[in-house]
Amino acid sequence: MDEDIALAHVLADAAGAAIRPYFRRPFLVETKEDFSPVTVADRAAEAAIRALLAEHRPHDGVIGEEYGDDRADAARVWVLDPIDGTRAFVAGRPIFGTLIALLEDGVPVLGMIDQCIIGDRWVGAVGRPTLFGGHPAHVRRCGGVAQARVGTTSPHAFSAEDFGAFSKVQAVALDVLYGGDCHNYGLVASGHLDVVVEAELKVHDWAALVPVVTGAGGVMTDWAGAALRLGSDGRVVAAGDAGVAEAVRGFLLG
Amino acid sequence: MDEDIALAHVLADAAGAAIRPYFRRPFLVETKEDFSPVTVADRAAEAAIRALLAEHRPHDGVIGEEYGDDRADAARVWVLDPIDGTRAFVAGRPIFGTLIALLEDGVPVLGMIDQCIIGDRWVGAVGRPTLFGGHPAHVRRCGGVAQARVGTTSPHAFSAEDFGAFSKVQAVALDVLYGGDCHNYGLVASGHLDVVVEAELKVHDWAALVPVVTGAGGVMTDWAGAALRLGSDGRVVAAGDAGVAEAVRGFLLG
Repeated sequence: MDEDIALAHVLADAAGAAIRPYFRRPFLVETKEDFSPVTVADRAAEAAIRALLAEHRPHDGVIGEEYGDDRADAARVWVLDPIDGTRAFVAGRPIFGTLIALLEDGVPVLGMIDQCIIGDRWVGAVGRPTLFGGHPAHVRRCGGVAQARVGTTSPHAFSAEDFGAFSKVQAVALDVLYGGDCHNYGLVASGHLDVVVEAELKVHDWAALVPVVTGAGGVMTDWAGAALRLGSDGRVVAAGDAGVAEAVRGFLLG
Repeated sequence: MDEDIALAHVLADAAGAAIRPYFRRPFLVETKEDFSPVTVADRAAEAAIRALLAEHRPHDGVIGEEYGDDRADAARVWVLDPIDGTRAFVAGRPIFGTLIALLEDGVPVLGMIDQCIIGDRWVGAVGRPTLFGGHPAHVRRCGGVAQARVGTTSPHAFSAEDFGAFSKVQAVALDVLYGGDCHNYGLVASGHLDVVVEAELKVHDWAALVPVVTGAGGVMTDWAGAALRLGSDGRVVAAGDAGVAEAVRGFLLG
């Protein structure tokens, strides 16, 4: 695992070096959606990661947002989202992230959230403490949903039915913070935010987040409380406090 | 105006120095809402600004979020929001801002948006180009609402009626980015975002934004298209493109 963690740092460094030249560049906002510079930045970052994986882990599988699947049935599969938070990236907001995960038999065992502009980097691995900037990150306890600060990226990132379920949480929670994408899960790991609830996520959106949240003492499952693994339905709850996670799931499914 | 702009930089530097020690500190998330460290950070920043104003502009008025009004009927009034984006600040998200404005006869003539963690700083003044990091900022043109990337902080920061009006914009717009607070208006000024629509803003929330947006070539008014001034109703539209601003107002009022 040490070597995989070391490699993840190298991969994230390469992705950041590929992304930074595109951030807030004028052409970014002038190119069309169907072939936009954000796609160029995405592709450049994922290509950089894949080149390194081909060199260092030629037998592992890869699932990436931009370039699809490569040996996705391998026992070890790297799951990549070069830019999670496209809307933020395109708008020049430096809260997006590169997500790098390693699945073993479909279960995430290593995850990295890297923010290449502001420098926030979380890395989690099964059986190890999550590190933020090299130091252990810890979730915080929370007395209940009514004391919880909840994050979610957008009210439009839910189906109507799922947003109805989320609204039950929102009605009880202390407060809801919108925007943030993957960065919110890092803030849960570091004990600044209590809960994140989202839906419609793809495996590249959530795989890296699970080891980060759990390695910091938190809980991250699907809405029914089942462990997230390849094939999960994309509805996720992350929380620093296990009791609050359970209570939130009760509202979502109740 | 040169001296007022120079002073605004000094004020923002002082606010940042007061805020940074509180950012992501553990006690922040453990103190209660009614006397929370975010209030401590707010107050420390506003106190730092007010001390400098008392020294350098003893006859000007001051309106601040934390310490209220002081000679608010003066011809020149400084309007302060030490931390705009409390939810983000409390959650450890480095997208919030210190807002400093100067009103002359109720009209904003100078505005600064400062982000003391990531270092983004916009300063605008009547008759001058808005500067971002010392360089002129420019809005971008936009062909229509259907091509517009729209920002707004939260769906809950509208009355039900106003959110219905905003939803008409959202239904037509290319995309909506949530979260961001004052930072979104800087992104409009720098040509990364096309429109921001919000409601329920206080004068300390919007006063600094007007010179920043307009000095970069954009438009910022109330929903009816009237210039923002002390007493405006807190419903604002900012846009880089004047035609898009007008079209958005049509949806909001139509």
